[in-house]
Amino acid sequence: MKSVLYILGWILNIEALFMLLPIGTAVIYREHEGIWFALVMAILAALGFLLTWRKPKQMRFYMREGFVCTALGWIALSFFGCLPFVWTGEIPRLIDALFETVSGFTTTGASILPKVEFMSHCSMLWRCFTHWIGGMGVLVFLLAVLPMVGGSNMQLMRAESPGPSVGKLVPKVRATALMLYRLYIVLTVAEAVLLILAGMIPFEAICTAMGTAGTGGFGFRNDSFMSFSPAIQWIVAVFMMLFGVNFNVYYLISLGKLRDASRCEEMRWYVGIIAAATALITFNIAQTGMRLADTVRHAYFQVCTVMTTTGFSSADFDLWPGFSKALLVMLMYVGACAGSTGGGLKISRIVIAVKALLSYLGGFLHPHAVRRVRFEDKDVEASTLFGIYIYFIGAFVIVVLSILLVSLDGKDLVTTFTAVTATFNNIGPGLAQVGPTAHYAHFSTLSKLVMIFDMLAGRLEIFPMLLLFYPPLWKETVGDNLRRLRRRRRSRNADSVA
Amino acid sequence: MKSVLYILGWILNIEALFMLLPIGTAVIYREHEGIWFALVMAILAALGFLLTWRKPKQMRFYMREGFVCTALGWIALSFFGCLPFVWTGEIPRLIDALFETVSGFTTTGASILPKVEFMSHCSMLWRCFTHWIGGMGVLVFLLAVLPMVGGSNMQLMRAESPGPSVGKLVPKVRATALMLYRLYIVLTVAEAVLLILAGMIPFEAICTAMGTAGTGGFGFRNDSFMSFSPAIQWIVAVFMMLFGVNFNVYYLISLGKLRDASRCEEMRWYVGIIAAATALITFNIAQTGMRLADTVRHAYFQVCTVMTTTGFSSADFDLWPGFSKALLVMLMYVGACAGSTGGGLKISRIVIAVKALLSYLGGFLHPHAVRRVRFEDKDVEASTLFGIYIYFIGAFVIVVLSILLVSLDGKDLVTTFTAVTATFNNIGPGLAQVGPTAHYAHFSTLSKLVMIFDMLAGRLEIFPMLLLFYPPLWKETVGDNLRRLRRRRRSRNADSVA
Repeated sequence: MKSVLYILGWILNIEALFMLLPIGTAVIYREHEGIWFALVMAILAALGFLLTWRKPKQMRFYMREGFVCTALGWIALSFFGCLPFVWTGEIPRLIDALFETVSGFTTTGASILPKVEFMSHCSMLWRCFTHWIGGMGVLVFLLAVLPMVGGSNMQLMRAESPGPSVGKLVPKVRATALMLYRLYIVLTVAEAVLLILAGMIPFEAICTAMGTAGTGGFGFRNDSFMSFSPAIQWIVAVFMMLFGVNFNVYYLISLGKLRDASRCEEMRWYVGIIAAATALITFNIAQTGMRLADTVRHAYFQVCTVMTTTGFSSADFDLWPGFSKALLVMLMYVGACAGSTGGGLKISRIVIAVKALLSYLGGFLHPHAVRRVRFEDKDVEASTLFGIYIYFIGAFVIVVLSILLVSLDGKDLVTTFTAVTATFNNIGPGLAQVGPTAHYAHFSTLSKLVMIFDMLAGRLEIFPMLLLFYPPLWKETVGDNLRRLRRRRRSRNADSVA
Repeated sequence: MKSVLYILGWILNIEALFMLLPIGTAVIYREHEGIWFALVMAILAALGFLLTWRKPKQMRFYMREGFVCTALGWIALSFFGCLPFVWTGEIPRLIDALFETVSGFTTTGASILPKVEFMSHCSMLWRCFTHWIGGMGVLVFLLAVLPMVGGSNMQLMRAESPGPSVGKLVPKVRATALMLYRLYIVLTVAEAVLLILAGMIPFEAICTAMGTAGTGGFGFRNDSFMSFSPAIQWIVAVFMMLFGVNFNVYYLISLGKLRDASRCEEMRWYVGIIAAATALITFNIAQTGMRLADTVRHAYFQVCTVMTTTGFSSADFDLWPGFSKALLVMLMYVGACAGSTGGGLKISRIVIAVKALLSYLGGFLHPHAVRRVRFEDKDVEASTLFGIYIYFIGAFVIVVLSILLVSLDGKDLVTTFTAVTATFNNIGPGLAQVGPTAHYAHFSTLSKLVMIFDMLAGRLEIFPMLLLFYPPLWKETVGDNLRRLRRRRRSRNADSVA
């Protein structure tokens, strides 16, 4: 318990540090909203200082503590992160501000703002910056900066990193975390520079690059990217695709191992699915009479935005024919590669599941043959397979219960279904009343709470959030502490008797 | 191969036998349509005679043969079963007649007929009779009547029976099959008698009882059960629920083991879910200003019709509020108990999956404890768990691909999604353009073929149909036969050389 609070304290410290960026922006643009960011920074620093004042003697970290820490950490991050929006009056209702901030950190990009163009620069930057932080993960950042938790910080990294299993890139967790952030920064800067060269003003280029990097999706224009030039749309689309690739690949490239990098099976499936989906949608929407180059660009942009779960849009795909819409909704669940900043179920899980199905069918032909599932040139272990199945069941349970709760609002089924789909998979826009040109403000508070849960569950790969709502966890934690208290009291009594 | 054809022959023989019922009806009502049934009966008998003329020396039956036999048997059954509709001109297009007949045998109840009331009595009876045959299964019937395939006919029974694993009720397959049909007939007759007592005319009562027994859903009035009296609606609703129960329970009751019967965990979940869903929907639709008794009846009727995947309707639930619609769509996937005539994923699969999820979450608290999943007072074996997971993946793949193909018709997403849902789970009506008062005639031929596949896949528990489209099966079968041919030719050449 103490070690969880200690880590939480460090998370608050780091958020305080991150607040420097919007404060700096406020100074540059001479915006009085910066005061509120400074106030929140002070609160964060004070709380963080209190919690990290004394390092606990024992830092025992098992899966349980790792998960609880991650879930609570992200909730705290979002709660304090939303306060500036409330206090500047730009998002006056707390639930809305919380929704917006969770949407930011989880890189969802679903917004409750009908109009974003009136926001101050510092708030706008903070909004986009949450994507960037959430994309790679705040705990990964923590591990990169602080050499502290000892040998068991793998649990923290595992809890926050997307995908069925964390590949330890380099033997030391800290080195891995540092290397990931280095690649992340390089790619983000590269995109910002290219966007500026393509004619974007620097502030917007930085916001866009941060949103793309985290596969977030908050725009700074009401129509997202519809009114930008084709060149800018192409750059954003390509970078969305790049940020959906497993970062292992970039690590291998940075080591010069190009052949190993190109062999990554997950990346090949990812690129193949994007190419196939783009071709199918191009063919499907070609009838609407656009120029071929525009059709291809819009198809590619929308496929990338949905597959990588970013959520920008260059066209209102809610107006596209049924086949394209159905395909996009399905790609929302597929998601990006494991080990990327994208969400969804992840390519590797889907590919492994389908391979397991085929191997099972093969078992009917050869009942006595050994059934194997191969992925990335290795046999998939039974425990990994089992974890993937349970992941699907957990995702299914969350989506079903969420749809039921959100449907109490009485909206049409497409809105309800795609709102849950788009938040759980951290995409942003759905269809109908939550389409690319719409927003999420019209939902009830209950629905917003459900979707906040969904966004966090989607970003943290469901188990940390599920564990937080798993009664035995609290029963045991409370039971343990009560027992400890009783023991202490008893020993005190024994002392006084003696 | 020969043994598969032999079984197929017997299936045709039995269908010829079944044709006697519509022919008899035609004689009673003096309808000339009976001639066409007689013609089809003659064709079936001739073909069946040819195929069963010589019993193959070896009757080797593994899973593969069992599955292929079941899949091909049901396709043949449907193909010949649809011919009378085409030839009488009541459903002139072959694809529509095939859709209607597959919908009948798979107990789906999705109809392409905008108006059913003009049908002749013999065709109407055949249409409802297909439900009754398909509900318990034609191969189960075959096994009940014929003591033939030897020790390995368990494979056939397993391939056709719904649920994660076939409980061998009594040691001998034939005895089990006989007992199942005996219970089935008793329950069907009981319903028909009650319906006649409640004021239904006998012909309609028989059709209704057969449709309920198979959890089919073909009506004989355009508005299904909306215009029948409350008493009749109650009887039908209760019997729908009864036919969704695992038949093991009735077997135990017939042996007088009431305590064992009441202990069936799956049945308890089933009844609990029906009760909870009825209460929730009653509460949700109560605002529309109906009398409470009517509200409860309609809620209960619709929950039963969807859970048991029957497909009758006493109210147009497409007009109900979003929550009720979302709940009903989800119950479509839940389905009835294993070992019943109902479809869907089955209660036992869902319950076991959710228990596996909870046990996995428990594993985070106690990493070293042994993870167990208990169902029906037994530990679920790893292979059963694995089979359930793969079943979900297979179902998911089929549903996703079907939705994509059907969405090419350009209909709205709710129609596309619920049409696939309602056919794959063997329910019948969906929402929007396939709602309770609508029909399936307006789909393209491709979509109808996809849904025919879905209905068969849903009824036969996916694997037989998936195996039929699994390339290695055909490659190996063709390869085996080619090799045999070559060997024969070689030995002949050797003979002639000698």
